[in-house]
Formats: sequence, C-alpha cells, structure tokens
Amino acid sequence: MTDRLARRAAGLDDADPLAQLRDRFVPAPDVVAYLDGNSLGRPIAGTAERVAAFVREGWGGRLIRGWDERWLAEPERLGDEIGRVALGAAAGQTLVGDSTTVLLYKAARAALAARPGRREIVLDAANFPTDRYLLAGIAAELGHRLVVLDPPADGGVTASMVAEVVGPCTALVLLSHVAFRSAYMTDAEAITRLTHEAGALVLWDLSHSTGAVPVALDAWGADLAAGCTYKYLNGGPGAPAFVYVASRLQAELRQPIQGWLGAADPFLMGERYEPAEGVGRFASGTPPILGMLPIADMVALLDEAGMPAVRAKSVALTEFALEVADELLAPAGVRVESPRDAAVRGSHVTLAHPAFAGLLQPLWARGVVPDFRGPDGLRIGLSPLSTSFQEVLAGLSAVREELVGG
Amino acid sequence: MTDRLARRAAGLDDADPLAQLRDRFVPAPDVVAYLDGNSLGRPIAGTAERVAAFVREGWGGRLIRGWDERWLAEPERLGDEIGRVALGAAAGQTLVGDSTTVLLYKAARAALAARPGRREIVLDAANFPTDRYLLAGIAAELGHRLVVLDPPADGGVTASMVAEVVGPCTALVLLSHVAFRSAYMTDAEAITRLTHEAGALVLWDLSHSTGAVPVALDAWGADLAAGCTYKYLNGGPGAPAFVYVASRLQAELRQPIQGWLGAADPFLMGERYEPAEGVGRFASGTPPILGMLPIADMVALLDEAGMPAVRAKSVALTEFALEVADELLAPAGVRVESPRDAAVRGSHVTLAHPAFAGLLQPLWARGVVPDFRGPDGLRIGLSPLSTSFQEVLAGLSAVREELVGG
Repeated sequence: MTDRLARRAAGLDDADPLAQLRDRFVPAPDVVAYLDGNSLGRPIAGTAERVAAFVREGWGGRLIRGWDERWLAEPERLGDEIGRVALGAAAGQTLVGDSTTVLLYKAARAALAARPGRREIVLDAANFPTDRYLLAGIAAELGHRLVVLDPPADGGVTASMVAEVVGPCTALVLLSHVAFRSAYMTDAEAITRLTHEAGALVLWDLSHSTGAVPVALDAWGADLAAGCTYKYLNGGPGAPAFVYVASRLQAELRQPIQGWLGAADPFLMGERYEPAEGVGRFASGTPPILGMLPIADMVALLDEAGMPAVRAKSVALTEFALEVADELLAPAGVRVESPRDAAVRGSHVTLAHPAFAGLLQPLWARGVVPDFRGPDGLRIGLSPLSTSFQEVLAGLSAVREELVGG
Repeated sequence: MTDRLARRAAGLDDADPLAQLRDRFVPAPDVVAYLDGNSLGRPIAGTAERVAAFVREGWGGRLIRGWDERWLAEPERLGDEIGRVALGAAAGQTLVGDSTTVLLYKAARAALAARPGRREIVLDAANFPTDRYLLAGIAAELGHRLVVLDPPADGGVTASMVAEVVGPCTALVLLSHVAFRSAYMTDAEAITRLTHEAGALVLWDLSHSTGAVPVALDAWGADLAAGCTYKYLNGGPGAPAFVYVASRLQAELRQPIQGWLGAADPFLMGERYEPAEGVGRFASGTPPILGMLPIADMVALLDEAGMPAVRAKSVALTEFALEVADELLAPAGVRVESPRDAAVRGSHVTLAHPAFAGLLQPLWARGVVPDFRGPDGLRIGLSPLSTSFQEVLAGLSAVREELVGG
C-alpha cells in the first residue's frame, strides 16, 4: 500500500461521523478486513447476551404464555420497525418470517393469481439464482413464460429495458433493487411506474439494499417486496426474511401456503381457512422468534445512525474501494464490474480477474474475507456501520499481494 | 388433592429413572405445573450459553467462513441426528429448515406431482388446522378433491377407516401420527401399507410424536414426513421444522419452491436449476442456523435417556394424569377425550368441560400452565423429560380448585 492511500484511509476514518459505531460489533480476532458484510453481517456485541437472556427468561420463564404476551405480534412489530427504519414503508405492510426464497415464492404466486390471463413474468439474467430458479419453477408449473432481460456485467436493469418488454401480457416484474453481483441500483420508482402502466405488478427483491441504501417502497408505489435480514440487517446466518405487501393490495392478494398463523383467528382452528386481514395473511407456520432477536438490535442501531448517514458512509466506502482498486489493482489487470456512478451503486463493488478463483482461500487464511462470485469476481462488501476505510485498504492491499506478490 | 394421590405421585417420582434429567431444564420461577411441553418445550439449561457462544464465536468469529466450515452441512447433520434418535430413519433422509407448514406444503406438492392423474387427497377432520388449511389450498389450486375422514372426539383415524377410502384415485394420504387434540396414536405402519397397496403416497405429520413416542419411519416404509421441533424437541418458539423423504423416492420427488440452497451446486449459480441429489433438494433458502442450536441440545438429551425410557415415562405420566382426572375431576363433570389405551395414546391427554374456556387465565395466573383447545378442551401435555408426577398432580388439583372451589 502506498503512503498516500494509508494517509487518506486514516483521514477518512478520522472524519467518519459513524466511526464510533464500529465498536458496537463483536470483534473477530483473526480478521484483518471483513469485506463480506453484504453476505453475512457481523453480530452486535449485546446480541449474544440478549439472545441468552431470551432463552432463560423469555422462552424459559414465560413458556407458552410468551405467545399471547408478545411473540404472536412480533412478526408484524419487527416488520413495522424494518419498514419504518429501512424500507420507507408505513406500518402494517411488512412481516418477518420464512426464508427470502419462500417469501418470494408466496409473493410471486399471490401476484400471478391477481393477474389471471396474463402469462408473462419479467426478470433478468443477473438476478440472484434463487429468484431465477424460483420463477422458472413457477412458470413451468403455471404455464407462464419468462421474459429474461440481459443487462451488462457491470450494470443492471434500466427503466428503458423494462419499458421495451412490459405490456398487456405482463403479469409480474421481479427484479433486484441492487444487483447481487454488480451492485447496480436500478430505478425502482420508474420501473414500478412503467409496470403499473402496463397493468402488471412488481415484486422487489431488496436483499442487497435493506439497511445499506435508501429504499422508499411507499413512495415508489411498490406492490410487493421481500428481502434478506442476514446481510445489512445483521440477523445472523439464515435469519428470517421479510415481505412487504402494499396496504391497498392486501385484501386482494392470497398466497398459496395456507397455514394456521396466516388465518384470521389462528386459535379458532375452524373448519375453513379464512385469511387474516392485512399483511398477516402472508404468514404460514409458527414465527421463528429466536431468529428475530438479532435483527431487532441492528434495526435499532440503523435507526440511531439514521439511513441518510448510513448511505453517505456506504457511498464513501465504495468510492474509496474503487480509488484503491484503480491505484493498486488495475495495474495487475483487475477490472471493475460495478457502476462508477455512486448514484446507481449499492454497498459493494465487484472486482474481476481470472486469478481470483484461486485467491479466496489464501485471502481467508490471512484474515481478509471478501467472497467470490464466479467466474472471476471478488465481491467486496462494505457494510457501512461495521467497516473502516483502513480495513478496505488493508483488504485490497492483501488482494494485490496475493495477485502480484508482496 | 388426596393424601393417597400425593403419596402415589411422590412414589412415582422416586421410582422414575429419568427424574434427574428434570434438573437439566431452565427453571421457571412462577410456574407450579408446566403442562404444555407438547406445545412449547422448555429450554435446556446449557442452551442459553451455547447460543450466546455461537453468536460471539461461531457467527461473530468465523463470519462468512462458517458456511463452508460447518453451517451448510447443518440441516442434514442435525436432520440425521433427529432421524437416528427420534424417527427410526437412516441417515440421508431428514432435513431441518423452514416451518412445519412450509415443509408440509413442499412434501404434499412433491407427492401429488409424483402421482399425476390421481386426484384425491385423504386427510381427517381432526388433523391440525395447518394441515387441513394447507391441503384445502392445494386442492383448490390443482383441482383435486379432499376426502375427509371424521374420527370420534376421543379417538383418531384407524386403518380400517383409511382402507375404506383409498383406491385408484388416491394420490396422497396426509395424517397426523398423534392427533393434536385427542392424542390418538394411529397405526402408521398399517396405514402406510394400505396406502401403498392403493398406489398412493403417505405423508406423516409427526409434530405431536417426535421426541415423545416411538416413530419408525424406515420400518413403516413411510414415504414422507414432517414435524415440529418446538414441542418435544424443545427447539424454542418457532424453531425450524424437519422433513423426511425416503431415500428410494428422492430422485423422483421435486418440490415447487426452487431456491439456491436446494440446487445441486448452490455456488455454481448456473442458469438452470438442477435439484440436489438426496434430501437436500427439499431445501429452498438459506438455513436458519441460530434456530437449530437448541434442537441439537435436546436431541442429545433424548439420546442420553433413550427413546424406550422416554416412552415408558410418557405412558406413566399420561396414565397417572388419567388416574388423577378420574378421581378429582370426573366428579365435577370433566370428560376424558383421549384414548384410555396407552398403546394408542401419545404424550398428552385432553380433558373437556364446558367451563374450561374461562379457566385458562386463572390457571396461568397461579402458575399452572396447560393449554386450551376449543370448544371446551384443556390439553394436558406431559413432556417426559421435564415433567414430574407431582407436577401433574399439582396442576390437576389446581384445575379442580378452579372448577369447584378449593
């Protein structure tokens, strides 16, 4: 690393108004640079004890009474908090539970059922595999046709690409707001509008957005959204996901996995399934309470920091990562496969080089932890509240050393 | 309570070879009698610290590396343990993840897809609401017909009832092994055989069986099963469920929620979904690691106790509960709505009285915690490892006091 970059990283850390919040996270003793908070966010220091206290006092002390006293309301209570802090969603539209895949399935099926006669689903080839696999299965099942957009490697789906394909046959558009590989942030508001003009519904995958970039579901006029909580919401490995269903659509939409917790009165246990009013009808089984606890801690921290400040630091981190990549890695043949324009970039950058496939293990072994996305991409995730500028520099300097020798 | 019953309860506790294991559970200071372990099992004392240590060291220390090192294998590793200890299932057939409802959905849909042309699904009116609601949704979606058996209130589905309705139109039989209300334990081996003779598949809901009564999926020749882990596997509120798919069927069965973690190589992230070989193809999204930790602790404890000893204590507890009910509650007009024959009874008993609907809150307030199942049932759940005979007596004595006055 150059002295100039070292001074610059130190200066950026000194000037970072959120720098103190890094101390709120559990330290990882052997980790020099954690560049994968976009895949698995770090735990907050108090979470371990809070979870233990829940096991002893909440679960162990209240036992079954906990459901009536608090837990049954938790999927919507935590959903409302995520909505308020990170999604631009008014209360009563966001529910926590299931995995992202299962919630996307429910949301997509509900949307398609609400557009009978329309047989096309728009998605893009750069979407996360779960989204593509899921829709392929649904399309095969229902006899629908997939319309697959094909954005450039360092970009994503634009409004004009969507405008070209939506029309009277379109039932559903399912796109990622921030692309999992390139980090391209699409114009969700414009695409939502275009989709509605075509009479279709839109389902946003917010997995790589939530907690890192501004999301404004209500302002966009979005119909449905789902996303992951173990990335920038630091929920822990496999933490439950969330789904958003716009209030105006809730009475109309029905999801196919009819379980007791999605019923209007679960404890009536009546003969016929009557879906709950509101977003609760997107529940199926018993909500995973333990898995929700860490999410609540991170949502509170994001609220304390404020999303505009979080976004500002995210932009500064990705800008700095590109600056370091240009100076240290471009000379070794590394390409940038993320947008140069911060306005359309999420909170990670993907760097590409044919040698990267062999570099992940040596990097991990020295405590530098990005992740790899084939065929040749090193994904540098920059979780705003837990990442320092010096960490970015240390990490990318190690990439250079592994690539060209110290 | 009578002196005779008090002496008898004390004697049974003294003679109980598993009595020491009750100390392994977290105490609940205000609880006199916990009679709802069949709805939410108690946490084991070491679980709180184990979960906290996982947050700090597993998640916080290993970070994303944990997936490669251990977590990706966890749904099948823990599934194999549940299978070995509690299900009579050889390795490679049991997977943990999702809720019971979602896994029943996947299993039912996979089974129906494997029996094209057959349009009937057999279930029973006494099955848990999720099972009935779920199948009603699936049947409406696919144009199938539900064949609903109607067992007596204190009984359950018998083999002869099934024999009368299965035939060349039957695609699937979905029954609970132990009925959630009456605790009737059905003859799963005979019903599996009858179902197969009709050319159909059987899906067992093991929610009220697993960890309390003998289950022998491989010996029964079962096709599919799913069940809950927060009852007698003490996984905590909303803990992830498990699904069993017999090895001989795995290549043939496909479930409809195609996510990346059910793919043959999740990190290939290829264009087309290719389901994993083995039971792993029943996965969809990222597995809920935190929620699996408590389950592992209880499975280890069940293994230590041995399922035959667990079943013996379960039978002794339910026998004693009926003895107390007959002596203290029958004179007040309480009816028993569970089988008298222990051979066909699970690990709870349901008592019925028109006044019970108003009794739950006063009972809970004095630390006596059964649950209520409408219209008039008090369900007395007797989790074998955490319940004492004196606790049963204290609880039912309190029911009598509330019913007829002290």
